[in-house]
Amino acid sequence: MAKVIQEKIVLGIDPGTSVMGYGVLKVEGKKLSLLQFGVIHLKKYAGHELKLKKIFERVTSIIEEFHPDEVALEAPFYGKNIQSMLKLGRAQGVAMSAALARDIPITEYAPKKVKQSVTGNGNASKEQVAAMLQTLLSIKELPKMLDATDALAVAVCHHFQNGQAQSRSASWKNFISENPGRVK
Amino acid sequence: MAKVIQEKIVLGIDPGTSVMGYGVLKVEGKKLSLLQFGVIHLKKYAGHELKLKKIFERVTSIIEEFHPDEVALEAPFYGKNIQSMLKLGRAQGVAMSAALARDIPITEYAPKKVKQSVTGNGNASKEQVAAMLQTLLSIKELPKMLDATDALAVAVCHHFQNGQAQSRSASWKNFISENPGRVK
Repeated sequence: MAKVIQEKIVLGIDPGTSVMGYGVLKVEGKKLSLLQFGVIHLKKYAGHELKLKKIFERVTSIIEEFHPDEVALEAPFYGKNIQSMLKLGRAQGVAMSAALARDIPITEYAPKKVKQSVTGNGNASKEQVAAMLQTLLSIKELPKMLDATDALAVAVCHHFQNGQAQSRSASWKNFISENPGRVK
Repeated sequence: MAKVIQEKIVLGIDPGTSVMGYGVLKVEGKKLSLLQFGVIHLKKYAGHELKLKKIFERVTSIIEEFHPDEVALEAPFYGKNIQSMLKLGRAQGVAMSAALARDIPITEYAPKKVKQSVTGNGNASKEQVAAMLQTLLSIKELPKMLDATDALAVAVCHHFQNGQAQSRSASWKNFISENPGRVK
């Protein structure tokens, strides 16, 4: 009998008001691979509404290109002040709309949860998260776009949380012992 | 020669996380008329994501029914706390997305500006705003849906303000200068 391998695409989004990261993850059974990741620079767009429009357009075009089955969102529930939280909420809402419009389920993860899930350490640095992703996804060289790796991390976190309860808690220790020069 | 009368449809939205009001205004030259107004009750939907999905769907269906040329948003830039502002920002972002997806321009107005524009008094009560709308739009009887009249008021405000070319990029600054003490 042929073995049935579950395949799905997860889009991870790290929404921000100046940079939005995204990462597209392909899951085939237990095998993870990177399809695309990148950042959407928003500072160049003058005006809050134009920024929101660009977020909507870019997330929509990513969804249309990769047809993700699920969306995972890195969602901080805290912030510096009321104003920045309103703006962040709008950016999140607009990014979520692109998925809602196509009935793609969205799951949110707090930043600490993402770090915990991917590295085993809820206080891991962005660099540590990136290094772990590089290993997990067999990426030869990671570009220096930490917002993009954050978005990819939330997609990986979603995969780990979703399927079989794969314990990742020991993996950071394993990673450190296996990659002694990598960790600062 | 026939007189050219400019006609347009303005959709006013008063986004909230438990109730979202909307009002559809028809403008023919200087004549204003009410096409529809109402509220979207969100409390009955369990879960924040489902609420956002319903906002997106309902605003989209209103846009598809009335084809508004412009959207006016009542946008408070203050709130009780960080969490509620994030949620409000998301609700606003989702409502805005429905318009952004169709390239419909959005203009935001602070609540005080809406009251000032419609009644001449920035501190008018919701009932006073409703009474003025009843006169302006020759509505025989207003239903007791003050969130709906608020949304209609922002559409009327937008019509009154129009032509004065309110810069969107400046509106945040204007809000802060017009509402000292509101923004921390």
